[in-house]
Amino acid sequence: MAAVTNETPIRVGLLGAGTVGSQTARLIVEQRDELAARVGRPVELAAVACLDPKETERFPWIDPAIVTTDTMQVATHSDIVVELIGGTTAARTFVMAAIESGASVVTANKALLAKYGPEIYAAAEAKGVDIYFEAAVGGAIPFLRPLRESLVGDCVTSMLGIVNGTTNYILDEMTTKGLDFDEVLKDAQAKGYAEADPTGDIEGHDAANKAAIMATLGFHTPVSIDDVTVEGITRITADDIAAATAEHKVIKLLAVVENGEAGVSARVYPALLPDTHPLAAVHGSFNAVFVKAEAADDLMFYGRGAGGAPTASAVVGDVVTVARHIAAGTTGPSIPLYKNLPLAPASASRAAFAVRFLIHDKPGVLAAVAGEFARHGVSINAVNGDLKPSATQPGYDGEIQQLRIVTHPTDEETLRATVDAVRGLDAVTGEPSILRVID
Amino acid sequence: MAAVTNETPIRVGLLGAGTVGSQTARLIVEQRDELAARVGRPVELAAVACLDPKETERFPWIDPAIVTTDTMQVATHSDIVVELIGGTTAARTFVMAAIESGASVVTANKALLAKYGPEIYAAAEAKGVDIYFEAAVGGAIPFLRPLRESLVGDCVTSMLGIVNGTTNYILDEMTTKGLDFDEVLKDAQAKGYAEADPTGDIEGHDAANKAAIMATLGFHTPVSIDDVTVEGITRITADDIAAATAEHKVIKLLAVVENGEAGVSARVYPALLPDTHPLAAVHGSFNAVFVKAEAADDLMFYGRGAGGAPTASAVVGDVVTVARHIAAGTTGPSIPLYKNLPLAPASASRAAFAVRFLIHDKPGVLAAVAGEFARHGVSINAVNGDLKPSATQPGYDGEIQQLRIVTHPTDEETLRATVDAVRGLDAVTGEPSILRVID
Repeated sequence: MAAVTNETPIRVGLLGAGTVGSQTARLIVEQRDELAARVGRPVELAAVACLDPKETERFPWIDPAIVTTDTMQVATHSDIVVELIGGTTAARTFVMAAIESGASVVTANKALLAKYGPEIYAAAEAKGVDIYFEAAVGGAIPFLRPLRESLVGDCVTSMLGIVNGTTNYILDEMTTKGLDFDEVLKDAQAKGYAEADPTGDIEGHDAANKAAIMATLGFHTPVSIDDVTVEGITRITADDIAAATAEHKVIKLLAVVENGEAGVSARVYPALLPDTHPLAAVHGSFNAVFVKAEAADDLMFYGRGAGGAPTASAVVGDVVTVARHIAAGTTGPSIPLYKNLPLAPASASRAAFAVRFLIHDKPGVLAAVAGEFARHGVSINAVNGDLKPSATQPGYDGEIQQLRIVTHPTDEETLRATVDAVRGLDAVTGEPSILRVID
Repeated sequence: MAAVTNETPIRVGLLGAGTVGSQTARLIVEQRDELAARVGRPVELAAVACLDPKETERFPWIDPAIVTTDTMQVATHSDIVVELIGGTTAARTFVMAAIESGASVVTANKALLAKYGPEIYAAAEAKGVDIYFEAAVGGAIPFLRPLRESLVGDCVTSMLGIVNGTTNYILDEMTTKGLDFDEVLKDAQAKGYAEADPTGDIEGHDAANKAAIMATLGFHTPVSIDDVTVEGITRITADDIAAATAEHKVIKLLAVVENGEAGVSARVYPALLPDTHPLAAVHGSFNAVFVKAEAADDLMFYGRGAGGAPTASAVVGDVVTVARHIAAGTTGPSIPLYKNLPLAPASASRAAFAVRFLIHDKPGVLAAVAGEFARHGVSINAVNGDLKPSATQPGYDGEIQQLRIVTHPTDEETLRATVDAVRGLDAVTGEPSILRVID
């Protein structure tokens, strides 16, 4: 075996050549001289694993001679393996095999890390290789690296993220155009901003994967996708948005991770934010993460959460960092999970809530609804029955009114029990929407 | 000399124990266990250099036994030197001596780096030590590190920064309260948000230091404070703000660095931004930097630009990174200035401008002003003479009107020549305000 010199290329093996993979290949090939200057050794795109090599013919910067269908071969014969195939089963196999072979790994796979992150981090640490995944949360936004490396002398107490561009686009369109959810979703699908099966986005599961990763890294504690409570945006109506606007608020789907006295929590839910909050200015498909830390106070990181070139920018940033470590014979900081904080019980989650019910407007209905709130000990901050129901409202029969109740802070379990009790009332119909109120 | 083990402390020498220094000391002492876990070796606050050791008695976490007036001794007998004394003369001497002694350096000193950065970076690289300075631009915001390390596979084309909290606070107060500059400045001084001598902030010099650092790092090209063109905010009036608000715009003092066809530029000027721009939502004393990169597209980094604890968070993040490098026997990426791009000439700076003149409202004045614009070839996009002058306007004599002209894009030299010509007209009085228009 030849000795390693400053001329010896660091060999990058790419698993997957889709939207992000092809752009990652382009940056590595086109920025070749730049990368070599920054790393101190050449960084070479040595192999591209792709189930259908014909797919790569569209990309003139990918040399057909390095394309193969043998993913395992690439995973186990590279200095750096870039995993961009997605999913959790095959990806896990290839990533673990890569680490076992002594390769460092760069991945954008949020589902993989939300499910198997701690196992993968531990394997990388045991083997003395790097695992970097900037693109897994917030796409192009350099956010996880600062969290891992810049805030290490500080203590992060909470993070609020707009980490799903599809839902942010939908809520933004509902806000600016006054349209209902279903209309905007159809339009977003037509324009390619939402997938044919949008469930993973609109039900919050994509954001939940990111919440698990954010909590794990922010609190040095393993938090899995199974620990994340999730609510999506499908019950939000144009009337909810109009009510928010009237109160100078906006509705955003947030991934919220907190480190409180009762332990750590990771949740995804739609929330009402004041329109002066920095996250309120995050429009369209942009992402942003708002961080609170003890010493640094408020921070926010903003940028494109998806897209081939933006995500590839983050991937290649990781590749350069890992390549520098390889050239120097070292690794970056491991993902330290030494704190092992407890998970907070659901009853520890306190907030003010805005609940919108659909009611048949007959005598006594307000007394009955308010009675359920009183019986559960939930204090009402504001009530508004003036909103006109939109005719597209599911269950609308021409007599239905909306009743919107904003509570004082209460715990989530009690709030849900109260809402269930109200739904059991004769005069109440349809699905209520529940929004958390964030100050 | 004893062998270095995992128990051997990495010795931090702190130069300066003021607002940031005292908080840096607190984090290093209070987070001792955390830092040791992250670094793999203890990180010890070994010495604090302070001209008046009595000053440190207020800080119970600083052991009086490690406080000394001998700054040079601390600078040359530490593993990591944290320079927080400010200024460019003594600080340069101590930083260069520290590097020469083999210490790595962490500093928050923007003036030092804007003046002597390339010399210091080269000395650190030659000696094989680290120089980190996250806190020098944007205080607590982890922004320079991502620029240095996460965006290395990308190409930054421009950055717009709100990097001076005092001026952002003043402009914000003028906007929300409708007050004139002088009134808000006095109030800000009374509240401690502006210094007794606010010149460095309000004339843009503080922001100019940061612009020089941003351009140097972003474009891999030495840009010094002497290369930065600077305009402050002292000529902006409540009427300018009112005109901006009426157009759904905000006025912000920006540090703008660009890498264009004519070369790189670094400027500080007040500008009109659409109120939907992410930077428009940066209020009070917060800072933010908006980055455009070829692959990543738009990014923004937001947080506290000053203050003891926030700035110390960034300093300690750097200390941990440098300590990890020392423990691993390596260094971080050097500050690469290999591109040496040319500086763009002033004539290459094209923008639309909003100029507000004070005029004696008599027949023919508009024709005369418009004539000067025509003579210089500057095309007028909009003109507005309806604004009422405020009675506090300097030079107000009861007959003066404001005339506000928004141009189509033109180069700055021509615009300034036009404005000078207009000021030479009999009917024109007082100081015009000049704002760039950013889309």
